[in-house]
Amino acid sequence: MTARPANAHQTRLLRLLRDGGPHSRAQLGDRIDLSRSKLAVEVDRLLETGLVVADGLAASRGGRRSHNIRLAPELRFLGVDIGATSIDVAVTNAELEVLGHLNHSMDVREGPVAVFEQVLSMVGKLKATGLTDGLDGAGIGVPGPVRFPEGVPVAPPIMPGWDGFPVREALSQDLGCPVMVDNDANLMAMGEQHAGVARSVGDFLYVKIGTGIGCGIVVGGEVHRGTTGSAGDIGHIQIDPEGRACGCGNRGCLEAHFGGAALARDAEDAAREGRSVALAARLEAVGTLTAADVSAAAAAGDAMALELIRAGGDRVGQVIAGLVSFFNPGMVVIGGGVTGLGHTLLASVRTQVYRRSLPLATRNLPIVLGELGSTAGVIGAARLISDHLFSPA
Amino acid sequence: MTARPANAHQTRLLRLLRDGGPHSRAQLGDRIDLSRSKLAVEVDRLLETGLVVADGLAASRGGRRSHNIRLAPELRFLGVDIGATSIDVAVTNAELEVLGHLNHSMDVREGPVAVFEQVLSMVGKLKATGLTDGLDGAGIGVPGPVRFPEGVPVAPPIMPGWDGFPVREALSQDLGCPVMVDNDANLMAMGEQHAGVARSVGDFLYVKIGTGIGCGIVVGGEVHRGTTGSAGDIGHIQIDPEGRACGCGNRGCLEAHFGGAALARDAEDAAREGRSVALAARLEAVGTLTAADVSAAAAAGDAMALELIRAGGDRVGQVIAGLVSFFNPGMVVIGGGVTGLGHTLLASVRTQVYRRSLPLATRNLPIVLGELGSTAGVIGAARLISDHLFSPA
Repeated sequence: MTARPANAHQTRLLRLLRDGGPHSRAQLGDRIDLSRSKLAVEVDRLLETGLVVADGLAASRGGRRSHNIRLAPELRFLGVDIGATSIDVAVTNAELEVLGHLNHSMDVREGPVAVFEQVLSMVGKLKATGLTDGLDGAGIGVPGPVRFPEGVPVAPPIMPGWDGFPVREALSQDLGCPVMVDNDANLMAMGEQHAGVARSVGDFLYVKIGTGIGCGIVVGGEVHRGTTGSAGDIGHIQIDPEGRACGCGNRGCLEAHFGGAALARDAEDAAREGRSVALAARLEAVGTLTAADVSAAAAAGDAMALELIRAGGDRVGQVIAGLVSFFNPGMVVIGGGVTGLGHTLLASVRTQVYRRSLPLATRNLPIVLGELGSTAGVIGAARLISDHLFSPA
Repeated sequence: MTARPANAHQTRLLRLLRDGGPHSRAQLGDRIDLSRSKLAVEVDRLLETGLVVADGLAASRGGRRSHNIRLAPELRFLGVDIGATSIDVAVTNAELEVLGHLNHSMDVREGPVAVFEQVLSMVGKLKATGLTDGLDGAGIGVPGPVRFPEGVPVAPPIMPGWDGFPVREALSQDLGCPVMVDNDANLMAMGEQHAGVARSVGDFLYVKIGTGIGCGIVVGGEVHRGTTGSAGDIGHIQIDPEGRACGCGNRGCLEAHFGGAALARDAEDAAREGRSVALAARLEAVGTLTAADVSAAAAAGDAMALELIRAGGDRVGQVIAGLVSFFNPGMVVIGGGVTGLGHTLLASVRTQVYRRSLPLATRNLPIVLGELGSTAGVIGAARLISDHLFSPA
């Protein structure tokens, strides 16, 4: 794909076809504020670029039946979501439907060279299934702050070795297509906005609870990245001045008390101190515990596991309550690896927020789990690059 | 003033003349993306409405000298800033220059009827000075959350008796002009953005520390009011789970530990317990202490007063650090009644934020005092109503 839209009308048309699928010319006319003749000109120009095609007959609206207009079916986007402990890679069409999706466990601390070798190998596997010959663009999410215009991670606390690595430039060369890079929580927010629980919500927060904790902020339908791209870094908000020492050098940070890493540590302590038979058995069997083990123990009714999840929900709920007071969003979405903790976690978060924030802010505030699970990040990544490519060059 | 702009071009022209003062037609052409002939049509239409006038000769740019275009000099806006313990009322011209300004001490808890009687009496005094015969519009700020579209305070914690009071409707009848109502911190942010320290800053936070503590949030040049208008309610963010009981029913809220009210209480305790000779003398002399007394004692070198300000700065700095991590603003402005506490307060806030937030978020982050003092709110109020009136009806 080398063509790009020539003006704002074409951008609107492309995004409408991406988000709403095929439209007849009459339907496009209902959605786009252009005269009939100007619309026809812009659609014809897009047909000439090959970005859209005429395909199948649209339902008649009384006159001559016309062809549906849709995005070129052979367009392919790559979505990559690099988490602290795993990599998700997916190929989508231009309507951001996932055509193939692979997941691989890998520690982000192995560094960008090893991680991107793995990503390229996964892309090769997806290509080998016949989904696509080439890629038209790729979006990449990383679990830390990104200087967005350049696509470079900056001083990411849980990603030693990535500081200043030119992710955008390097991957763009390796993949042979345009690349955009963003923080993973931002992309998950965009994924849930495109295809998940936050469709049609203009202002919302996506709280990602994985190994660490981050937040995607959507204002007026757009991701708010902040002045230097670090917005949403909520893992190091202080929740207790006398709290635990954190890896960042401060005390009482949210991430020191909750998140996948803290939960695993707390579970191991509980197992060793004889506070949970189930967790102790699992620790003895596999030598280490993860958030997923806590989730499994809680599902089996283990009181200690439930208590750990509840306490964690109180901690993150305390921070979310502050963000709700400050930002007054229309929805809060909880996602990321530990959503397996499910409704016990959600109940604690809700209790904190509804107790602590102003009634005006919480009266109509849904606090919900994300719907897309591990595809939120890859769909958001595909949307990021499509937003870029569906804009004038 | 009954005329309103007819389209977005006229709106841009009016706001440009408001924010930048008189312009020649050639200068307007440089700033507005319109063909010469279309610009001439829009300017002529605005001249016909009487909203703008041709006035004085502009500097020559080689051709025939033309008249400057400016907003009608007889337009008058009213800005009203209702604080917890005082009322500010000012009259401005259409360029939002303050022509007259009165201040009156009054407790907002006396309720809307008594407060607005006082406001009308102050308006009468300003009119009596010959500044204006009539008002073209009024902006009103109140120290609590406002349902913005209707201009109605909602469940305001420090304003019992105001919940649901139709401020906009009532004052619009009394004043005989259009009225817009907003939270006071939002208006102070708009004031500093229009004429103060935040000029040209697109994303910033204005932290108002008065009797209570609130925050105005500016994103992309516009105030972010949130889904239900309560954004910026940071006074009840929890800073210590084991902290002081707060009037709102929770524990450890920021306002329970700092702000004008908490500072006065702490100062009285220190005076009674013999921890400050200066504060004890003042308490004995006048029977009660205020934040201003602490400020005066600190200026005179009283160690206890300085310590109270430092501790308060640590508390509010802790919350601001969290907001900086979350929102990544381009500037933080500290304003409101207790800015008399000045650089001691600022130093504590800066220490907390620079220590606790990510380097990427704080690298180029000015944390400064507001420049406009008590005129920030009234200028912001005048700007609020001018934004409304300078938009198509």
